[in-house]
Amino acid sequence: MNILYLEDLAPGQRFAGNTCIRIEESRVRTFASEFDPQPFHLDEGAASASIFRGLAASGWHTAAVTMRLLVDSEFRPAGGIVGAGFDELRWPRPVRPGDELRVEGEVLEVRPSKSRPEQGLIKVRTNTLNQNGEIVQTFVGNLVVRSRSATSPES
Amino acid sequence: MNILYLEDLAPGQRFAGNTCIRIEESRVRTFASEFDPQPFHLDEGAASASIFRGLAASGWHTAAVTMRLLVDSEFRPAGGIVGAGFDELRWPRPVRPGDELRVEGEVLEVRPSKSRPEQGLIKVRTNTLNQNGEIVQTFVGNLVVRSRSATSPES
Repeated sequence: MNILYLEDLAPGQRFAGNTCIRIEESRVRTFASEFDPQPFHLDEGAASASIFRGLAASGWHTAAVTMRLLVDSEFRPAGGIVGAGFDELRWPRPVRPGDELRVEGEVLEVRPSKSRPEQGLIKVRTNTLNQNGEIVQTFVGNLVVRSRSATSPES
Repeated sequence: MNILYLEDLAPGQRFAGNTCIRIEESRVRTFASEFDPQPFHLDEGAASASIFRGLAASGWHTAAVTMRLLVDSEFRPAGGIVGAGFDELRWPRPVRPGDELRVEGEVLEVRPSKSRPEQGLIKVRTNTLNQNGEIVQTFVGNLVVRSRSATSPES
């Protein structure tokens, strides 16, 4: 897919990732050690007695991996994937060591900016799936996208 | 602050972080290389011509650092900080290399579970601030918290 300007985007458009990322147990632990050092992300024994019933990746690890999958996907908005914010971020099931994640998405809304004609905002539902096709994360991203009519390369 | 069970929590309670985390330029680049490899998170020149007007940390880096600040804060819900999901995640201004981040939060809502009396859900507004007291990230977390009445150590 080519670079997508605001004018190229419309509700209902779907996209898929080009890649999978395998979640290695060692990275689950090192990510958690730095950013989310809670027992259920670090220790198998503590994790099995927790709400997760086994070692689980930090949700923020899953979110970060999802961003990588998006950047490498066929979804290429003009100006990059620039999140103004995210809503309805949910982790309906745990990500386990060894899981292989991929993304898929759908454009929900496209809205030109009234104050800044060189850009607009889009809403994109993004699902992250494991190797069994089960959703492990979902969110609605609010992204800033350039208009084709943008005149300055900086805008 | 001690461990907080569902019964200990009430709307309006506020908490603060105990620590700051300094965002090193090298970590901005390595985090982005792994999870968000877009020019404005990697290269000063490209970043200055982008919407960010200078090198900026990935929002997911800020989110992960915020989680670490929360885990190390005085806010210690029973069972750990277990996010069922997050809403209204926003990054109102960029995080720059050298910024020192801290968190503060407020309990917005406390709701026992009807189907699972051993736990409940709370909503917590969390702000991440830089060294100038400016908000660089905000979200509303939906957290699962154990009830004091939980009878099993596993629940």
